Amino acid sequence: MRADYCIVSGGLGPTADDLTAACAAQAAGVPLRTYEPWLEHLRRRWAKIRPNETMPANNLRQAEVPGSAEVLGNPDGSAPAFALRIDRCQFFFLPGVPREYHRIVEEMVLPRLVAATGNAILRSRILHCYGVTESKLDELVSAVREAHPEVRFGFRTKFPENHLSLSALAADAATAEASLSRVERKCREALGPFVYGADGVTFAQALGEELARRGETICCAESCTGGLLTQLLTEVGGSSRWTAGAFVTYSNDLKHSALGVPREMLQQHGAVSEAVVRAMAEGARERSGATWSAAITGIAGPDGGTADKPVGTVWLGLCGPPGTTARLAKYRGDRGQVRLQAAYGALQLLREALGPTRVP
Amino acid sequence: MRADYCIVSGGLGPTADDLTAACAAQAAGVPLRTYEPWLEHLRRRWAKIRPNETMPANNLRQAEVPGSAEVLGNPDGSAPAFALRIDRCQFFFLPGVPREYHRIVEEMVLPRLVAATGNAILRSRILHCYGVTESKLDELVSAVREAHPEVRFGFRTKFPENHLSLSALAADAATAEASLSRVERKCREALGPFVYGADGVTFAQALGEELARRGETICCAESCTGGLLTQLLTEVGGSSRWTAGAFVTYSNDLKHSALGVPREMLQQHGAVSEAVVRAMAEGARERSGATWSAAITGIAGPDGGTADKPVGTVWLGLCGPPGTTARLAKYRGDRGQVRLQAAYGALQLLREALGPTRVP
Repeated sequence: MRADYCIVSGGLGPTADDLTAACAAQAAGVPLRTYEPWLEHLRRRWAKIRPNETMPANNLRQAEVPGSAEVLGNPDGSAPAFALRIDRCQFFFLPGVPREYHRIVEEMVLPRLVAATGNAILRSRILHCYGVTESKLDELVSAVREAHPEVRFGFRTKFPENHLSLSALAADAATAEASLSRVERKCREALGPFVYGADGVTFAQALGEELARRGETICCAESCTGGLLTQLLTEVGGSSRWTAGAFVTYSNDLKHSALGVPREMLQQHGAVSEAVVRAMAEGARERSGATWSAAITGIAGPDGGTADKPVGTVWLGLCGPPGTTARLAKYRGDRGQVRLQAAYGALQLLREALGPTRVP
Repeated sequence: MRADYCIVSGGLGPTADDLTAACAAQAAGVPLRTYEPWLEHLRRRWAKIRPNETMPANNLRQAEVPGSAEVLGNPDGSAPAFALRIDRCQFFFLPGVPREYHRIVEEMVLPRLVAATGNAILRSRILHCYGVTESKLDELVSAVREAHPEVRFGFRTKFPENHLSLSALAADAATAEASLSRVERKCREALGPFVYGADGVTFAQALGEELARRGETICCAESCTGGLLTQLLTEVGGSSRWTAGAFVTYSNDLKHSALGVPREMLQQHGAVSEAVVRAMAEGARERSGATWSAAITGIAGPDGGTADKPVGTVWLGLCGPPGTTARLAKYRGDRGQVRLQAAYGALQLLREALGPTRVP
């Protein structure tokens, strides 16, 4: 055991395979005890959420913690986090549900770590990039990284994005912030248009908020992405400011009836064609009254590919005040990856129309 | 070190923070070596994917492995998995990208484990449940679990679903399969309509495939879910057999123009109302020609709630051959959770219309 602090997650729930509290007690050489205030909490919580249903008895197991543990609780769930010292290591046992875990780390664990380790302040920033591979990203910032050992660089892929995380540890907040700002500026210079945002903003959100600043809106016309693009635009709170809606025209009939794509065009060019993607974009803009419309039609796979139009062939279209543009893309990957890249490709068309942000 | 086998994932990529191979070599007390065949593989792979771009030199780092390692490779990515013995433990080092990881476990690691551990055969099945809490699920199957120690029970939450995994380890496949089938049948009896499918099928897919069997189709009319329901229906390959498309009518204007919801109705009842959800469902069915239409209008939050209609208030509608039904739901949770529960709620309305599968 070489670590001074250790965070353990998961296995605190009510079911028979949730064994973490029992194992922790055994490792600490103490018996389990029932933490009475949590029993009360569990009963009140169940009565509030499911007033017409009896609470299964196994739920009460969640109030059992190692005898020497400090119960930290859980603002969002039924399994309480607890802190426990085993030999020289301070353990934190947390529920594995990501939403509960993150909040407990933020509100209960980090403050204890800061208090225990003295006055060290950690500040971090994550730059979100699109259109650049992870290895190219590393290469572009390598000179900055070498010149600034006071900031730690990390790289994470969140397909199809790549993220660069910068962390500065210092004795006080002002020093940490100053290091971080200096390095962030240099990284942004090195990365140029690849950076679309920072610290948790999504690609669709960054574009949506730019539209909202301009007082503009978007409507989508989706075929192979089947609602994914619109879902990316609307998963963000407040997205009604920039999203009018969408026509998900999966069938050719609906492309005709909902968007006015001529039947002869569908027959002559096929649904996956420049003519159809332009007609879809123009139909969606006209019928929604939105400022912009983005259209996608392609072959997501796994079936439906031909020699001429293999799986991954996607036509992207954008219609707006400057007119209509279209782009042919050829994506690699499975169905989910083709769809996600197509949704990003359509957003990138919009991004280029809004400013000088072309990426390779 | 008590384990005989250990799987390590992540940190095999090209960037400066990818240190796994170097650490593994150090732990094994051997130097790193360059595995030449992988260099070739990396060059060919890059030339195929990005013919017009020079490969950053750091990519070649991925061909460096501990001297005594057996290179396993990676059918989908640029970082090769490798096997390495350290003391008495057989390690497998795998890339962390989930898609690559899963395939390598399946195709390279599991066969080696089976070969190394003798003739033990593991068979497993996952029952996917909707409409039941994890603790209730445990309670319902606890008698079966106690009567069948030869099968291991596991519980996993995949919000808003709960999954029961059953695993049987035996000397031969026939014995493992027989144990599993017997216990699966008893669990299905105990769980009744809560089980909607098994082994990776999604809720939307289970319903979509039932529609396809009947030769029927669905069209969606989505407001607060913003395309999420349609995305769930279409993320599955072959979903054009059951999905006609969708009208994502985020704005009231589009509810009127695209679905024919009367403006007076929107004004009198508000967009989140039984009248409007019925009109949305009926408009979508009529305009798409689909057998069924599912409609959702609600308040996903974080803003937009009122005393009368707090965040989480959602009207669900279904229109089909038997007529139109509507249901008021009140969901807890953040925006993402409300939206996901609403999409599931609409699918559940369809499920009940297709058969006797009411859940609480």
